[in-house]
Amino acid sequence: MNSYGTLFRISTFGESHGPAIGVIIDGCPAGLQIDEPFIQAELDRRKPGQSKITTQRKEADTFKILSGVFEGKSTGTPIALVIENQDQRSKDYSHIQNTYRPSHADFTYDAKYGIRDYRGGGRSSARETAARVAAGAIAKLLLKTIGVEIHAYVSQVGDLKAPPYTQLDLAKTEDTIVRCPDAITAEKMIALIDQVRLYRDTIGGVVTAVIKNTPVGLGEPVFDKLHAELGKAMLSINAVKGFEYGSGFEGVTLRGSQHNDEFYNEAGKIKTRTNHSGGVQGGISNGADIYFNVAFKPVATIMQDQTTVDKDGNDAVVEGKGRHDPCVVPRAVPIVESMAALVLADFYLRAKTSRL
Amino acid sequence: MNSYGTLFRISTFGESHGPAIGVIIDGCPAGLQIDEPFIQAELDRRKPGQSKITTQRKEADTFKILSGVFEGKSTGTPIALVIENQDQRSKDYSHIQNTYRPSHADFTYDAKYGIRDYRGGGRSSARETAARVAAGAIAKLLLKTIGVEIHAYVSQVGDLKAPPYTQLDLAKTEDTIVRCPDAITAEKMIALIDQVRLYRDTIGGVVTAVIKNTPVGLGEPVFDKLHAELGKAMLSINAVKGFEYGSGFEGVTLRGSQHNDEFYNEAGKIKTRTNHSGGVQGGISNGADIYFNVAFKPVATIMQDQTTVDKDGNDAVVEGKGRHDPCVVPRAVPIVESMAALVLADFYLRAKTSRL
Amino acid sequence: MNSYGTLFRISTFGESHGPAIGVIIDGCPAGLQIDEPFIQAELDRRKPGQSKITTQRKEADTFKILSGVFEGKSTGTPIALVIENQDQRSKDYSHIQNTYRPSHADFTYDAKYGIRDYRGGGRSSARETAARVAAGAIAKLLLKTIGVEIHAYVSQVGDLKAPPYTQLDLAKTEDTIVRCPDAITAEKMIALIDQVRLYRDTIGGVVTAVIKNTPVGLGEPVFDKLHAELGKAMLSINAVKGFEYGSGFEGVTLRGSQHNDEFYNEAGKIKTRTNHSGGVQGGISNGADIYFNVAFKPVATIMQDQTTVDKDGNDAVVEGKGRHDPCVVPRAVPIVESMAALVLADFYLRAKTSRL
Amino acid sequence: MNSYGTLFRISTFGESHGPAIGVIIDGCPAGLQIDEPFIQAELDRRKPGQSKITTQRKEADTFKILSGVFEGKSTGTPIALVIENQDQRSKDYSHIQNTYRPSHADFTYDAKYGIRDYRGGGRSSARETAARVAAGAIAKLLLKTIGVEIHAYVSQVGDLKAPPYTQLDLAKTEDTIVRCPDAITAEKMIALIDQVRLYRDTIGGVVTAVIKNTPVGLGEPVFDKLHAELGKAMLSINAVKGFEYGSGFEGVTLRGSQHNDEFYNEAGKIKTRTNHSGGVQGGISNGADIYFNVAFKPVATIMQDQTTVDKDGNDAVVEGKGRHDPCVVPRAVPIVESMAALVLADFYLRAKTSRL
Repeated sequence: MNSYGTLFRISTFGESHGPAIGVIIDGCPAGLQIDEPFIQAELDRRKPGQSKITTQRKEADTFKILSGVFEGKSTGTPIALVIENQDQRSKDYSHIQNTYRPSHADFTYDAKYGIRDYRGGGRSSARETAARVAAGAIAKLLLKTIGVEIHAYVSQVGDLKAPPYTQLDLAKTEDTIVRCPDAITAEKMIALIDQVRLYRDTIGGVVTAVIKNTPVGLGEPVFDKLHAELGKAMLSINAVKGFEYGSGFEGVTLRGSQHNDEFYNEAGKIKTRTNHSGGVQGGISNGADIYFNVAFKPVATIMQDQTTVDKDGNDAVVEGKGRHDPCVVPRAVPIVESMAALVLADFYLRAKTSRL
Repeated sequence: MNSYGTLFRISTFGESHGPAIGVIIDGCPAGLQIDEPFIQAELDRRKPGQSKITTQRKEADTFKILSGVFEGKSTGTPIALVIENQDQRSKDYSHIQNTYRPSHADFTYDAKYGIRDYRGGGRSSARETAARVAAGAIAKLLLKTIGVEIHAYVSQVGDLKAPPYTQLDLAKTEDTIVRCPDAITAEKMIALIDQVRLYRDTIGGVVTAVIKNTPVGLGEPVFDKLHAELGKAMLSINAVKGFEYGSGFEGVTLRGSQHNDEFYNEAGKIKTRTNHSGGVQGGISNGADIYFNVAFKPVATIMQDQTTVDKDGNDAVVEGKGRHDPCVVPRAVPIVESMAALVLADFYLRAKTSRL
Repeated sequence: MNSYGTLFRISTFGESHGPAIGVIIDGCPAGLQIDEPFIQAELDRRKPGQSKITTQRKEADTFKILSGVFEGKSTGTPIALVIENQDQRSKDYSHIQNTYRPSHADFTYDAKYGIRDYRGGGRSSARETAARVAAGAIAKLLLKTIGVEIHAYVSQVGDLKAPPYTQLDLAKTEDTIVRCPDAITAEKMIALIDQVRLYRDTIGGVVTAVIKNTPVGLGEPVFDKLHAELGKAMLSINAVKGFEYGSGFEGVTLRGSQHNDEFYNEAGKIKTRTNHSGGVQGGISNGADIYFNVAFKPVATIMQDQTTVDKDGNDAVVEGKGRHDPCVVPRAVPIVESMAALVLADFYLRAKTSRL
Repeated sequence: MNSYGTLFRISTFGESHGPAIGVIIDGCPAGLQIDEPFIQAELDRRKPGQSKITTQRKEADTFKILSGVFEGKSTGTPIALVIENQDQRSKDYSHIQNTYRPSHADFTYDAKYGIRDYRGGGRSSARETAARVAAGAIAKLLLKTIGVEIHAYVSQVGDLKAPPYTQLDLAKTEDTIVRCPDAITAEKMIALIDQVRLYRDTIGGVVTAVIKNTPVGLGEPVFDKLHAELGKAMLSINAVKGFEYGSGFEGVTLRGSQHNDEFYNEAGKIKTRTNHSGGVQGGISNGADIYFNVAFKPVATIMQDQTTVDKDGNDAVVEGKGRHDPCVVPRAVPIVESMAALVLADFYLRAKTSRL
């Protein structure tokens, strides 16, 4: 299904080269000020063509609200938001009408549905994430009313890694086109992406997110643990291969005595001295920073010819052409933030009924 | 909520030291032979006290089916399955009635609910996973009817890593008490866990799962991608800190030209030469092996005194006592398999309506 | 599926002649005092053998809580509640193993599932409603904390009708075994049911429910309208054929000028002068009494031989034997109340997120 | 929430006087021929201004498909469908900005959300049902592939009733503007509605639906019984006050021996001699005609001044003006059919997993 969330619930629609993409947000509480310029600013952070290291495809990604907002405020009814598709060069895609691009969804869609809108990857295109960013912007507006802040940034491109988030000034994320708040690492990352692009290739990376000021008590124990839902949300983003939170995969090498986060009382507030838990214990937020890493594979579309088969199983070649991102992570930053915001907004509403 | 799955849907209940834990399985197709000895064998793989490197707590974990099975077969009505709790030393837990164990869920449960069954961790205890294993066994029975095989094993304990799965004989997983199919690594792992235990400490590890013979076409694009749901399922298991599939976090360092899985035609069947995709493309299974890693933190309960606070914020000490696992991953193997089975069974049913 | 509700969600299980029936209640807020004698009293109102006009089958219907309650209060985790089956004369049912009882679910279950637990009707037996009553009792406890009162009673048996609810003293419902608060009508109803029973036949009736003190604002517009959900809940009860609320089917003959409920201000509270709306406008409660009628058909099991076919399509006869109710409505009263309570409890929780 | 259905799932959005209304249909199987002229024809049956006995408001109700259809066929991705609002005389509604119309949703929306798009009733307007009709048309297309036919018609206006459906030629429903297939009754109904209109009043009515050729086995026992879901679907339509199927409310006066539907074998097919069950037994279709009645109250908007209060509780008068239906049932016929189609399409898909 194409919906996400329990109480703050979004349903997206649209193909890369259809008339429009969009989203319905159902369950947004009434009375929220809907800041349209903010939504547009968020979409602009994701849109193609924003810098030399992103695809040169142009989409204005202007949105229109069709319902659910009256005199600038949410009314409690579904907010429908539409983004028209504009820069569709559908004929660019006739070469893949019957041919399966390696590591794309062409083959699996055909196998599943028996029919496929091949233009620009159709529904499997990352263009769908624009709808998520628009909805995520509204989730952020809701979270702002309780002080929650979500910061994502590029922490790794290829082998190049930024220092841990606690050593960074996250306010500097937007200072560079690669969205890494560490200026020196950012410069190296940009150079690497540029070099990869010249080689007509692509490269992967990691986006790290940090969520501050989360109220204690968000997340549902057992299946809908806060970090489990964050994990699903991140893994549902195109090209994501892994998710870890808190100490993550490195934490497995520690001893319990090293890894445990001891509690202490700071001016009447219960806190932990360390934060290997990543702000989540037993699936429920404990008030500390929530932080996690999201691994993105190198973009599958490369500017090189590749061997493959067509839908009848005949050998074929996919030509490397079109306009694509050499590295997806800079544009993925607002998508990661949006999905995190959607998860938290939902848990915030769900938490309202946890006790009498 | 305490339910998981869309069409093959489980709902678990029960606390560590209540009268019983259990699960309702709703949506299991009618006519499935319910192999009760197999369910018991799966529970036995998870149960405590099974070897010297697990907790010495004893639970027979015998189950009783209350509904949904008639003359040995599922009837299409909900299958309710109950496991009585037996070895409850509730008085062992009076020391944590008002004290928050570091990196446990005591504090967050209290904050969320204002009330907490502290005995044995209550609902936050990994005892709840016995219900998942019972349900997972039934999911496995369903998947067997279409040939799907799920193998999990311990691939890492602390710094000790087994070779990649393609170099292992997965039939040997149960040969060692640590459930690593590589005999040499297994021996080292057992020694390490034993040593950690002597130091009254704990250690983390990684469970790897490999799923073979998945039909092409399982998984729903966009939010309910096959790997996203697997990720959520794994992250919902107690103590899990990370999930990666296919090339995972290492994949970010590759170039697209290295990472892409080229298609070819093998005797009329479309396959990929490499499998960085981990058997999933665009969120949908492509028929190749699905494989993924699950990171488990060191168990939070250690046999050492730890500094903490009580529920009023006063400084306190949690004594290290009771019976606990020095390393959770050997017993986590059937849990990982069970959650994978639940995800696949659900997508198998969901795929039945994807086309006319 | 066998679940009902969105936030206050129940999942029932069990067959008439299996080991037990039961229910999981998920989403009950933590901190609710669970009054076990009250739950038992509610079950006793539904149980068989309670009077001369009900079936003489005996079931103690004592329940056991397996989880979710600690020191008398709900903890926010799932409340599992089990009722063992006792008076199972399964051999009474061998005559219907292969024969389809008229107007029962034998044929449709076989057609749908290809397998059927025929003993006592299996899952299709109204025995399942005991689980609903137990869950409904907990919903009532939740609703009591906000003052909501739910009264159902028998308003019609065959052609015998009680006066409108506004002319009745609903406190007298339990005074007669037929559960009609009007003594004179009750006496006639009892005589009629007794007569029908002597003729080895059955008869239908109507249960009316009145809900008082509902807060304004419960119910979700569009699909999950308060009355639409009440309608589904009632129609999901065995033997129900119709549902109407407020002016109902008679309302169609009125003119708008007669039917409209004019608003007025009573001591600062907005009220309506009439209540054809039945307490619901636009799917949302307006604070007035919610009232509705539920039509029950005559019980399908009669003490007479009936012509039918067996599962191979051969002509057959179903003998009239066993122990059954001549009229279901007296025992349906607590079931109607329970389903109403479940609907309202759910909407009460859902309403907590309707605005900032 | 604003979604309906489990596997064939619709989500509607839009207010009466916003830019547009619309619907996302998620879960439509791939490969369905999307007959756009048929969708338009269905919308035209519902649209205002179609005859002298409907409102004279004009809306072209032309729709646009934004996604999910490629080369005329469904692709398995969400089908988004938008209908722009055109004939919006929003200023007509300034008189109700702060005043609560009797028996409308103005008061309850304000109470629930604290904000309300008052123009034309906003979200509570029956304009929302256009989205349902568009989605229902696609559900009908799906059902046509298995031969299911859905016929609704006006069976009652005020006190005027048509004969039972078995005595009618349902092909004649569209022959009269009132959509009653009995010509003589239709004429009387039209005269009555016309008279009521002249008196600046409104009147209620009943829509009856008959569903033929339903496969045996649709519907889920217990909560999601086929008739329970039909009931909810119907009761979710604006102005509906009651639902009954099969023998309905009249069935309560029968004896079991009269009411039971005996099975017999007709040329190898198991059928029932009577159909008091209305095609549903135990919540599951038995292959016989499904038939039910839906009661609609008189339209709340009348062309007369009415006493009420404003949002501050002051006495007020609502003037009778604007363009409204004197009787809603003729236009409700396609809405009833659409909701029935949505229910059946959903159960058709759900039934695909009921057995191995």
